[in-house]
Amino acid sequence: MGPVEIARRAREAARKLAAVPAEEKNSFLRKVADGLEQSCGAILSANAADVESARITFKEIPLAPSALERLKLDETKVDGMAAGIRAVAELPDPSGRVLSRTLLDDGLVLEKVTCPLGVLLVIFESRPDAVTQIGALALKSGNAAILKGGRESARSTAALLDVFAGALASFPGIPAGALSSVAGRAGVDALLALDEHIDLVIPRGGYDLVRHVQAHTRIPVLGHAEGVCHVYLDRAADEAMATAIVVDSKLEYPAACNAAETLLVHRDAAARFLVPLLGRLVQAGVEIRACEKTRALAPSLGLAPATEKDWRTEYGGPIRSVKLVESLDEAVKHVNRCGSHHTETIVTDDKLAAEEFLSHVDAAGVFHNASTRFADGFRYGFGAEVGISTSRVHARGPVGLDGLVTYKYLLRGSGQIVATYNGTNARPFLHRKLP
Amino acid sequence: MGPVEIARRAREAARKLAAVPAEEKNSFLRKVADGLEQSCGAILSANAADVESARITFKEIPLAPSALERLKLDETKVDGMAAGIRAVAELPDPSGRVLSRTLLDDGLVLEKVTCPLGVLLVIFESRPDAVTQIGALALKSGNAAILKGGRESARSTAALLDVFAGALASFPGIPAGALSSVAGRAGVDALLALDEHIDLVIPRGGYDLVRHVQAHTRIPVLGHAEGVCHVYLDRAADEAMATAIVVDSKLEYPAACNAAETLLVHRDAAARFLVPLLGRLVQAGVEIRACEKTRALAPSLGLAPATEKDWRTEYGGPIRSVKLVESLDEAVKHVNRCGSHHTETIVTDDKLAAEEFLSHVDAAGVFHNASTRFADGFRYGFGAEVGISTSRVHARGPVGLDGLVTYKYLLRGSGQIVATYNGTNARPFLHRKLP
Repeated sequence: MGPVEIARRAREAARKLAAVPAEEKNSFLRKVADGLEQSCGAILSANAADVESARITFKEIPLAPSALERLKLDETKVDGMAAGIRAVAELPDPSGRVLSRTLLDDGLVLEKVTCPLGVLLVIFESRPDAVTQIGALALKSGNAAILKGGRESARSTAALLDVFAGALASFPGIPAGALSSVAGRAGVDALLALDEHIDLVIPRGGYDLVRHVQAHTRIPVLGHAEGVCHVYLDRAADEAMATAIVVDSKLEYPAACNAAETLLVHRDAAARFLVPLLGRLVQAGVEIRACEKTRALAPSLGLAPATEKDWRTEYGGPIRSVKLVESLDEAVKHVNRCGSHHTETIVTDDKLAAEEFLSHVDAAGVFHNASTRFADGFRYGFGAEVGISTSRVHARGPVGLDGLVTYKYLLRGSGQIVATYNGTNARPFLHRKLP
Repeated sequence: MGPVEIARRAREAARKLAAVPAEEKNSFLRKVADGLEQSCGAILSANAADVESARITFKEIPLAPSALERLKLDETKVDGMAAGIRAVAELPDPSGRVLSRTLLDDGLVLEKVTCPLGVLLVIFESRPDAVTQIGALALKSGNAAILKGGRESARSTAALLDVFAGALASFPGIPAGALSSVAGRAGVDALLALDEHIDLVIPRGGYDLVRHVQAHTRIPVLGHAEGVCHVYLDRAADEAMATAIVVDSKLEYPAACNAAETLLVHRDAAARFLVPLLGRLVQAGVEIRACEKTRALAPSLGLAPATEKDWRTEYGGPIRSVKLVESLDEAVKHVNRCGSHHTETIVTDDKLAAEEFLSHVDAAGVFHNASTRFADGFRYGFGAEVGISTSRVHARGPVGLDGLVTYKYLLRGSGQIVATYNGTNARPFLHRKLP
């Protein structure tokens, strides 16, 4: 099947899926979870073949050890996938929720109701677990999904999709086109052009993948290309708290998108404790790139100078840039200018300063006295996450199932026409909010 | 100032505007309304010059009479603009609303709060009243706006912007860059490329304008290119109600985007009353383009045959296509395939059929026993409207002030770090919803 045919079939399936009751979708997901456990052997041998190819050589360039680690499945990981799908089945259905009801006039009720977006295109790199996670979230929310995995995980992806196909066979109410896949870059580029049939693209991968997708489609893209997050230690920052948050926001998981790349320090806080704090980071193996003021303050540490580029770089590893600022305002301006509008935090005992930071910083998450690493769907209590969005429209920040639905207006009348409410002697509307 | 400079200045202004209290924004809007009344003479003479140029010749092609009508201002229209701005000042502030609060753990509270989108680019054709309406809605919601009017209304637009500039001079808290304008197609095309600085484009105009904008930008576009809406008369449609809705949904305002272009009629309803209904439309001056089954049913009316193109055409005038269907399912499929996902209505006394239509039709508005013409921000009770959106992400259907805001997550902690909640001995989250 070509990309256009796949997308058309997905659109058709999405329209049917939108009307499938929650309980049927949940039973289907539980069936998939059972199927994963039953097919564990087949999945692991497909995955072993992927890992073997990747280990020997991949496009003449061997896969990085971290990518190989993400690619590799074992029994525990497959059990985890099944448990993840069962957890999604337990979540409330995000579709069909009544957001508001208004009595426009007697016998004329307007309802705003959530409904699925339609067709999702999900592009991921070497993580086979994205197949089950995104497949489950898409179907739970009533969306059809087209998946495109990396070449290095082709056999694993196929084995996992076989499990979904097996479950589909025993649920005639769930259309087969609800979950499909394409292979190859040409296939995905063709799909990115089909804005008539595809409603949202979710790229799960590194900077290059996300930028490529953003540059080659007019379909809305949910996600983020990079996370340049900041910790700002205000004049009134508590030393112990500042140290704990600075360490956590980088060392807890240096490659995470919500790890903080840049440390901004108010001159007064810097005078109190920046030198021992930086000493501690250096000791923990963090490479520091510092502004001139910071270097002058801590000559004994021999810190490397930061360039303009450092203020806009996501290091993805144990490197951190440090800048001394003269005021809260300078910190806010730096964050708004150089950040990626992902997650920003201020450490301070001054409530007014905190509220000013919260209201002036332009980002999906703005925190006070908490680590940037809290920016995450599970930590926020969403139960499951499709990604973290840095765009402003639709969904922002960590996105759970609610980011996969839109809404429609249902108007139930008893023969009303607009002419009655127009012109001279126009009948007035009631516009009364209903519970 | 070049487009990049204008956009940068707007971004800067938007960040300041986001923190301006509601009362200050409302006072500013009332000042603009007063200014409009005081400058009425200057506005009308600028407008008279625009009208005179347009009347003689415009780009060698005279303006259509309806466009000339929209261009022309008088004292009543200027008073109406002032009243409109005062009404916007009275609406609740869409920004700063708390959408949800969650206690993640003791002393760690997550808040989801609405905030402005940022910078809007609004492109409109020959309606000078769009300047005051959109200007007021943008500033009310805390957004900066860049306006691009048609060449034919250049002097009127400048006179109206002068009024905003005059009010800005007495409100130092509202940054001057919050409202700016560009002229010329080259200027607007340059702005459409600045997705880093502009967050939403609102094209207010005809099909060609909207399509041009959609095809030339990666910035999200709020609006609709066309409205191909349907009235479906079900098997159990009441004749009198069906007739009233069919007439209203086209003749009340044939050029409206929510006017119904296609009439779908179940064979049983057609047998009961389609011939007299069509006779009535023909008598009212509506040109009918009918499917073969309809033509066979009403040979005496000599109806023109509909082509495949008719099913996807917004006529924008007193023309209507008519199709006889054999079932509700056929009607739903036709609507989903040929409609523009704007507004669709079913007329029936059969509640089950109505609910099936409401749940299976894929459109921003799906109605039962009501005219498609109700799809409108004022009729829905939004107080003001920025447009009607047929996209699925962000805002859908008639869009009020709520469509000009997004949200951000504020997390207020007391020093929490993620390491506490990870690994062995991980502290569990509370995830308790707060009022």
